[in-house]
Amino acid sequence: MGQLTGGDPSLLRRINSAVVLHALRAADLATLTEITRVTGLSRPTVEGVVEGLIEAGLVVESDAEESGARRQGRPARKFRFRAEAGHLLGLEIGPHRVAAALSDLDGKILGTASKDVSEAAPADERLERLRTVVADLLRRAGIARSSLRAVGVGSPGIVEVDGTVRLGTALPEWTGLPLGERLRRSFKCPVLVENDANAAAVAEHWKGVATDTDDVVFVLAGLSPGAGSLIGGRLHRGYGGAAGEIGALHLLGREVTPETLLSTTDEPLHPLDEHAVAEVFAHAREGDERAQAAVERFIQRLVHDVAALVLALDPELVVVGGWAAGLDGVLEPLHRELARYCLRPPRVALSLLGEAAVATGALRLALDHVEEELFAVEGTVTARR
Amino acid sequence: MGQLTGGDPSLLRRINSAVVLHALRAADLATLTEITRVTGLSRPTVEGVVEGLIEAGLVVESDAEESGARRQGRPARKFRFRAEAGHLLGLEIGPHRVAAALSDLDGKILGTASKDVSEAAPADERLERLRTVVADLLRRAGIARSSLRAVGVGSPGIVEVDGTVRLGTALPEWTGLPLGERLRRSFKCPVLVENDANAAAVAEHWKGVATDTDDVVFVLAGLSPGAGSLIGGRLHRGYGGAAGEIGALHLLGREVTPETLLSTTDEPLHPLDEHAVAEVFAHAREGDERAQAAVERFIQRLVHDVAALVLALDPELVVVGGWAAGLDGVLEPLHRELARYCLRPPRVALSLLGEAAVATGALRLALDHVEEELFAVEGTVTARR
Repeated sequence: MGQLTGGDPSLLRRINSAVVLHALRAADLATLTEITRVTGLSRPTVEGVVEGLIEAGLVVESDAEESGARRQGRPARKFRFRAEAGHLLGLEIGPHRVAAALSDLDGKILGTASKDVSEAAPADERLERLRTVVADLLRRAGIARSSLRAVGVGSPGIVEVDGTVRLGTALPEWTGLPLGERLRRSFKCPVLVENDANAAAVAEHWKGVATDTDDVVFVLAGLSPGAGSLIGGRLHRGYGGAAGEIGALHLLGREVTPETLLSTTDEPLHPLDEHAVAEVFAHAREGDERAQAAVERFIQRLVHDVAALVLALDPELVVVGGWAAGLDGVLEPLHRELARYCLRPPRVALSLLGEAAVATGALRLALDHVEEELFAVEGTVTARR
Repeated sequence: MGQLTGGDPSLLRRINSAVVLHALRAADLATLTEITRVTGLSRPTVEGVVEGLIEAGLVVESDAEESGARRQGRPARKFRFRAEAGHLLGLEIGPHRVAAALSDLDGKILGTASKDVSEAAPADERLERLRTVVADLLRRAGIARSSLRAVGVGSPGIVEVDGTVRLGTALPEWTGLPLGERLRRSFKCPVLVENDANAAAVAEHWKGVATDTDDVVFVLAGLSPGAGSLIGGRLHRGYGGAAGEIGALHLLGREVTPETLLSTTDEPLHPLDEHAVAEVFAHAREGDERAQAAVERFIQRLVHDVAALVLALDPELVVVGGWAAGLDGVLEPLHRELARYCLRPPRVALSLLGEAAVATGALRLALDHVEEELFAVEGTVTARR
């Protein structure tokens, strides 16, 4: 009788800590009195929490920073959030390039770097290339590796929660690669591995063409197409990380692959051969009828795949990226055909971030991870189902 | 300088109120001291919040209820949550029947009722039939209409946020019907209208075959199939409420409707003719080759539709309901074919709730709405994106 079962003390400490940190991060500077008033917490609770945050290096007393110039009469102490207390990396490991972006705890981007890599490069060579890019970037920015709080990684394939690539045919030696584990050897902080289309969706929502919507499907329209979805502003990975893997949709009664669809000869194009694809599109623009027919077939296939996604998910916006971005003539037919097939056709737009999308999204995922630890109380004080 | 921007006082009052109510709901009885300790809020804050909750009728002082038998020496006052402070209704409006379920604020079901209705009945007649069912149910349970806090409704079609049916071909006069507005005339509380497959998905997750997973697709496998999805335990409606409307998928290169697929003559079956469908399935079981071929075609079509949903969403579990539930032979081929098409095939199960699924899910949605108002602080103190 009279037992309050909600009373996990460590959970409550975490909630109170998050509330105070959130208030401090939203303000420039705040006194203990102001924090007490805004949060509704008791003065001793606020004092305890702020002390803990200072010990963790996340908060600093403002006066303590400024040497000298102390005012008389012991003015109220003021505190601020330290965005420089940690850093994040976003990495892309793609078929043709590896790339990295660096930010502080407020998500302010401090630098980027990238290097080309052969599409035939084995996994070790690809990862070594990535390590070089990261080392260069950190050195140039003057940030110590020990300051990294989390690293996000975007790469093709279905990725398990632990960062193992369950299936990834786009890169050599990728299927079965314990990518998270391999990268954790280079970093002392959490490493989050994510499908590249998923990362790109997050990026377009953060800083790209999808900032005004929370319901967006990003289609990475390559020869091996994939898709990433945000639902209510959150990434939808699916139960096994396989959501949006529309590459298999062509098995549903349409056995033809994009490599065959886009070919203007009897031989299918080589998978990932972006150069050959760009040529087909260029020839089509120049009036080559065979190329035009190939592009038309490709667009019909893209429409079908995207329509199935739209029917299942009903997004507000579809963003098309990958090498199809920048190619003329994809948007208009996509929009027109979706209007035919879908009860509520979505808006359609090209990627704004282009090549930077995957690394930027990976960075945002790393930042999300850190913010979740620092700020999240979500799901802890809400109703049980 | 020094401004704390998180300081919306009404929001903070709401958060504190939710925290206290949540703690009280989890406990049988609690004193002010216990609430103060568990929540970390100050004593004056807790006193103010509890007073407000008593005024709102949601909390009662335990001693105050018991007439006489007051103990000496003013023992600490104890408080409890009043589950009987309000009631919820879940309604189903289907092609062949209307149904209702009634519960208290803890979701305990107090009674159910239903009536058959002609599939040709116009909207007015169908709604009048529903009103009779509701009036009977309330009278039998001895619950005043004024005690209703929210009403959930499940019905076929794409439903707007305001409860207008954007598109609903399964019921006469349904497309364009302001269903929410019409029902709000009968109730003084919020009325939430939801697609029937969505409601059924919620029900299976709450009390059916999907209680052990948060990632489930419910397929209402009728002649006009629809689907509802839970992602991370939350209903996924889509941006325009059209998510899962896989009925249009057959336009994607397969122009054949289920009515044609299941026909054993040259004429398609009448839409919604469940009797004729049951006959075809029965004949198939008896060895009729034409019927077996029809069922085989129907199952292939179902597999294709479900596979597209699974590729887009990657659920842990697919639940099959509607009139296909109970029919032998759907699960096994569905499971086998999904394993062929999907990179990560989901589990497949038949609906546990059967006919009760839609009304039960509608009730849960009404309860969610009330709980959100009472308890939710989610999204208010978490990190900005």
